[in-house]
Amino acid sequence: MLKNNLFLDALEGRDTERAPVWLMRQAGRTLKEYRELRAQAGSFIRLVKTPQYAAEATVQPVDILGVDAAILFSDILVIPEAMGLPYEMEETKGPFFPKTVCSEHDIHQLKIASGDEYGYVMEAICHTLKKLDGRVPLIGFCGAPWTLFAYMVEGKGSKTFSKAKKMLFSEPGASEKLLEKITMSCISYLKDQVKAGVHAVQIFDSWAGVLGPYHYQKFVVPYLKTMVDELKTLVPVILFCKDAHHSLEALAALGPHALGLDWTIDPVLARTVAGERITLQGNLDPCILYAGEEVIKEETERMLRRFGKKRYICNLGHGVYPDVEAEKIKFFIKTVKNFNF
Amino acid sequence: MLKNNLFLDALEGRDTERAPVWLMRQAGRTLKEYRELRAQAGSFIRLVKTPQYAAEATVQPVDILGVDAAILFSDILVIPEAMGLPYEMEETKGPFFPKTVCSEHDIHQLKIASGDEYGYVMEAICHTLKKLDGRVPLIGFCGAPWTLFAYMVEGKGSKTFSKAKKMLFSEPGASEKLLEKITMSCISYLKDQVKAGVHAVQIFDSWAGVLGPYHYQKFVVPYLKTMVDELKTLVPVILFCKDAHHSLEALAALGPHALGLDWTIDPVLARTVAGERITLQGNLDPCILYAGEEVIKEETERMLRRFGKKRYICNLGHGVYPDVEAEKIKFFIKTVKNFNF
Repeated sequence: MLKNNLFLDALEGRDTERAPVWLMRQAGRTLKEYRELRAQAGSFIRLVKTPQYAAEATVQPVDILGVDAAILFSDILVIPEAMGLPYEMEETKGPFFPKTVCSEHDIHQLKIASGDEYGYVMEAICHTLKKLDGRVPLIGFCGAPWTLFAYMVEGKGSKTFSKAKKMLFSEPGASEKLLEKITMSCISYLKDQVKAGVHAVQIFDSWAGVLGPYHYQKFVVPYLKTMVDELKTLVPVILFCKDAHHSLEALAALGPHALGLDWTIDPVLARTVAGERITLQGNLDPCILYAGEEVIKEETERMLRRFGKKRYICNLGHGVYPDVEAEKIKFFIKTVKNFNF
Repeated sequence: MLKNNLFLDALEGRDTERAPVWLMRQAGRTLKEYRELRAQAGSFIRLVKTPQYAAEATVQPVDILGVDAAILFSDILVIPEAMGLPYEMEETKGPFFPKTVCSEHDIHQLKIASGDEYGYVMEAICHTLKKLDGRVPLIGFCGAPWTLFAYMVEGKGSKTFSKAKKMLFSEPGASEKLLEKITMSCISYLKDQVKAGVHAVQIFDSWAGVLGPYHYQKFVVPYLKTMVDELKTLVPVILFCKDAHHSLEALAALGPHALGLDWTIDPVLARTVAGERITLQGNLDPCILYAGEEVIKEETERMLRRFGKKRYICNLGHGVYPDVEAEKIKFFIKTVKNFNF
């Protein structure tokens, strides 16, 4: 019933005439129309929490950029908030938690997230699906357990996440309880998104790279496995574990439909490690979009050649940076659409 | 003439009875004696610029922790300052440049660093060697061209270094001029350190990980090659390119005496990629030192077993974090010294 099946075809391993393309953070500050909507909403959090606004932001890049998939406009911190840990947003510094998780008592106080708290997201999905009217598929998403753990313990973004890692290494029992509660919340959240109609889901482990292979595979991968197992029979699942170069093989072994890759991983190496039975998504360095058209074309085409056409979804290696010009994004998308493998 | 040759033996590939051990940032805020010295100096920058103080800070961890090598107490930003770009230090936020490099004109204005500007470092080396009195070798160091470029263009630390990468991708010609000037400055600086008596040098490419393999090898590795070529016939050279998992093979091919590794790289994989003819140094996750003694012992011993005794120098995968207790560092060192391979 979808008019554009490229994205889902690539996820399911069917041949596509060209690589589908979308961008992480395609809905956002790079678009003038988004900035207007954001001003109208009054704040980022109000934009996220008002279903009509969130739906509008979700659909903008489909109208303006011509991407092959929409991704729900929302935030990974919806889940910590639904568990009882509200977040705030400072325009220049990003999100932070006024209260953080410091003790077993704090963990005990948290609840498993449910529709009572995140119902506004399901409403946003309904509005979005109406607006999209089958033009492209809609991707749902959530943060991965480790990334949410890291934010909830650290309280904000960090270069090292040393507070979160201190808790993981010195209180592994308590940490596992917290990771488990987050995992249950994320599964409930994604299942509800699927019920509301999303066509695929992506799990964002943005802070995978602060752990080494041994600890990532010991403490984190088991929870990702639970999530993939619970979801992959319902919809295609994309795992995007940024900077998890050390655990690609372990992640591929979980059997998600696709692995998202950041730009520090060579496409050919990734294909060798992940095998043929998985779709790869990524991975242009977002900073390439600061360059001129000649460089963007050369770099994009080199990437496309290295991934090849089979089981591939074109994207950046991380979200679009907010100060990239929309024209550069359009040129990137045009380059992908015009490329002959 | 040195009383403890473990570190230099390991660098040169000679057998050692046990793994030598030192820590990046071993001289610093974790030590009460350092904090007292820092208070006496009045500021971090005065501590760096006063040879007696810098020497005292350098020797403290030899006396207090019992490490097998001293590393000069200084800062990688000595070189940008010597090139004409002074830095300042904010206690909570780290170093920053009031003026940054924005244009070809700015690059043209910079000079090649020379002893006229960094003479105080050579004096610090003289004082240090006297204080050490041959107990352990002294490591000199500098920042790598890309890392210094990143700071000089960005003006401060950054999660993405998007300003620096924007310049690299959109003005490659000007960027190469800047990288070249920095490289010449670094070579002059390290050669002068060797003349002053350091026994080995380490080159810190702290921001290697913000570039992918293609761009790192295209724009950065050639300058590292020049540096290694110029230095390795004079003293043993350690290359520490943090998060450069993607370029280990290319870095090993430059033929430095050792490669430093961060904790996201598995020791066995690193040995396979780097080959047998190079020493490996690293790579305990610095956050392990937040845990209890049992965990520190288990993790340290697992790492030691995975590296093996041959051509190995024990260290963390990055600098000690400032809030780690000195007792934990001592316990880590004791564990290494007591371990039987």
